[in-house]
Amino acid sequence: MSLEGRDIISIRDFTKAELERMLSAADLMEPLAKRGSEILKGKIMATLFFEPSTRTRLSFESAMNRLGGSSIGFAEPGGTSVQKGENLTDTIKVVENYADVLVVRHPLEGASRLAGEVANVPVINAGSGSEEHPTQAILDIYTMKREFGSIDGLKVAMVGDLRYGRTVHSLAYALSLYKNTKLFLISPELLRMRREVLEDIGKNIEVEEGRDLKKILPEVDVIYMTRIQKERFADPAEYESVKGSYRLTRADLKEAKEGAIVMHPLPRVDEVDYDVDSTVHARYFKQVWYGLLVRMGLLALVLGAV
Amino acid sequence: MSLEGRDIISIRDFTKAELERMLSAADLMEPLAKRGSEILKGKIMATLFFEPSTRTRLSFESAMNRLGGSSIGFAEPGGTSVQKGENLTDTIKVVENYADVLVVRHPLEGASRLAGEVANVPVINAGSGSEEHPTQAILDIYTMKREFGSIDGLKVAMVGDLRYGRTVHSLAYALSLYKNTKLFLISPELLRMRREVLEDIGKNIEVEEGRDLKKILPEVDVIYMTRIQKERFADPAEYESVKGSYRLTRADLKEAKEGAIVMHPLPRVDEVDYDVDSTVHARYFKQVWYGLLVRMGLLALVLGAV
Amino acid sequence: MSLEGRDIISIRDFTKAELERMLSAADLMEPLAKRGSEILKGKIMATLFFEPSTRTRLSFESAMNRLGGSSIGFAEPGGTSVQKGENLTDTIKVVENYADVLVVRHPLEGASRLAGEVANVPVINAGSGSEEHPTQAILDIYTMKREFGSIDGLKVAMVGDLRYGRTVHSLAYALSLYKNTKLFLISPELLRMRREVLEDIGKNIEVEEGRDLKKILPEVDVIYMTRIQKERFADPAEYESVKGSYRLTRADLKEAKEGAIVMHPLPRVDEVDYDVDSTVHARYFKQVWYGLLVRMGLLALVLGAV
Repeated sequence: MSLEGRDIISIRDFTKAELERMLSAADLMEPLAKRGSEILKGKIMATLFFEPSTRTRLSFESAMNRLGGSSIGFAEPGGTSVQKGENLTDTIKVVENYADVLVVRHPLEGASRLAGEVANVPVINAGSGSEEHPTQAILDIYTMKREFGSIDGLKVAMVGDLRYGRTVHSLAYALSLYKNTKLFLISPELLRMRREVLEDIGKNIEVEEGRDLKKILPEVDVIYMTRIQKERFADPAEYESVKGSYRLTRADLKEAKEGAIVMHPLPRVDEVDYDVDSTVHARYFKQVWYGLLVRMGLLALVLGAV
Repeated sequence: MSLEGRDIISIRDFTKAELERMLSAADLMEPLAKRGSEILKGKIMATLFFEPSTRTRLSFESAMNRLGGSSIGFAEPGGTSVQKGENLTDTIKVVENYADVLVVRHPLEGASRLAGEVANVPVINAGSGSEEHPTQAILDIYTMKREFGSIDGLKVAMVGDLRYGRTVHSLAYALSLYKNTKLFLISPELLRMRREVLEDIGKNIEVEEGRDLKKILPEVDVIYMTRIQKERFADPAEYESVKGSYRLTRADLKEAKEGAIVMHPLPRVDEVDYDVDSTVHARYFKQVWYGLLVRMGLLALVLGAV
Repeated sequence: MSLEGRDIISIRDFTKAELERMLSAADLMEPLAKRGSEILKGKIMATLFFEPSTRTRLSFESAMNRLGGSSIGFAEPGGTSVQKGENLTDTIKVVENYADVLVVRHPLEGASRLAGEVANVPVINAGSGSEEHPTQAILDIYTMKREFGSIDGLKVAMVGDLRYGRTVHSLAYALSLYKNTKLFLISPELLRMRREVLEDIGKNIEVEEGRDLKKILPEVDVIYMTRIQKERFADPAEYESVKGSYRLTRADLKEAKEGAIVMHPLPRVDEVDYDVDSTVHARYFKQVWYGLLVRMGLLALVLGAV
């Protein structure tokens, strides 16, 4: 199965077989990430970040360099033609002359989709609006696969901001492609998943909502923490009242299942205590490494190198 | 004829034979732009953009990467030594130690010329002040040559802001090197070319001024549109009154000569309607590709690789 | 002796033998800097500049490119995860997955040291807080070695801001490793070296303080000028009163020793007159070249390539 020339806009655009292809491409990348390679020699990636995200940008640039390719682009929209009133379509029609693959991050929903429709070269969505951030979802699934060998049967708790965070929808979809997976949604009342989204997700995968992280800790294989942003709360007192229950500590993890792992898309603020870093459960920095492999694999796939 | 070590500051610094050499170098670049190359392997280009211009910067970086070289530089002056009071001469004397060729963009006229005089490595002007932007002029001429086979006898309409736009002077000079070319200058009264410049240009090439684009459409081979900037008009009502006549639409092009092409240095705002994009006349995105080839050719020439 | 895997945080972390190893590595780099090389092919350097410094960043990037490696990174903290509240430790634990060596510049003292302790890849300090800037000190010593053949017995005047400038401490330490060197500290009263620092330096090397540059000019081999920043003075009149005596001119240099050299870490404002540039004494632009060689050497050393 070839993914050459494909856009990576939403994880929902792909079948399970295609997702599995991406995961096995990531496997192939591990030796190349360690010793370097030239499989994309002469290829150029353009990173078009209409919204800054240093972490994601560096991950893609490192991936491209590890494959022997090179990068051009911008890290924020300041100084671009966009500020002279140019529309996104024109920008894409210009930049596609300069690169073999475009990586687009944009504050507006639908921007990466539009870029993919316009461009004659593959487009990878590095996050647009509050929509999906597909490479994050793929690296999350890849992390679980690497850590447990198989996704089937995993019990995953998503913790924190489930209302505004864009990771949960994509991940729920990806998990639903596997057998007997279960999703626990743990959040303060104010940040519960919206009713209509919950119903949509519930069609594909078993979902259980709750407020209390500690209660379900002994049950889950994956504790997926997310950042709760203070500014989401109209009343600071309300934020103060909830934040404690969603701050994971080393002490909490004594109740965790043996072999359970803690994941986080990073950056964290205080929702995962630093004393968790040295426990056997922490995987959020390993996740970064897996993310590099996944992005290497995706670049190699859409450019037809694997 | 070798252009190794030459600065590219103004198109007026070059003879017709040298310009032709640049155009044929661009021809050589097309296969390299598609499959990559290593003719500038180990070479470093420094992009010194004292004024942001993402489009031009990405074009040069892509050109360098396609030739196997690499790039360093800055995209805007913030954070540079310039802000600590350093003068341009010192900056150039430092950076020439780091690179084999310098690409300079600067808000002040004469800055690139000065850089060229100071540096021991070749300097390419990527636009300084309201002076010439020579790589734009060369790519414009190259576009015409590629599209028509020959420049001789072409009738070119420059439309829009002829008072402040820097493209027109360079292009007029370049066209004057060929036989029987003619330039139509179409602009609102307020944005007419200045008298003294007009007289200067008129020495070398037949020039006809006018206000009405539609009237000359059936006559011209090239319709070169430029952006009219609202902020040039003291009275917004005046802007509103003129802008309509300089907005090219698909309907207008029914009157155009067969084979006529529409060019634009980009970015456009609304002076070329989006419905023009799919006509047989549109060449402004193709122009971007030609621009990449021209910049590849110039880098290869001044570094002695072709 | 191998420096593979070592952090370069402070010049005080190294023995004389190790410093000599760095200087001889720089010697090896000169032919590679001229014709390019591939000894770091496939390696990635991340430049993490939490404080902008274009000059230092470009020097490192050029060094990495000349060795066949590539660079990723950020030039200023805007848009990084740091602004979302992430701490430095987390940033380092993420970025070490993307690169083989980290180059860190940070406004806070101790930041590079911390980065070195956290990272599993080598960290090079490109300046943090008012602490040492070790690659500057090494290139200063390297300049003297190249220009005089040996450091032993050199008389070096440091001129200007000795209170806030971070160069002087590192350089004093490095000089003290050699035989019979002497340091003259020439500054206005307000910018004299702090008593406790002076005592510390005085343990290792002969030091003489003074106010008058002209008086010691006939004695010294190296005149190391530094920028005096107007904003350090509470009273502008005081600044005006002193600045004249620390502005080196061509006329002043008539009193200089034969073979004496003028150095400056750059950027300069007006403390070295432009008419000095063409004298036989000026070495501040040559110093930039030596700096490139030193940084190439350090990258090659910590990555085990020489």
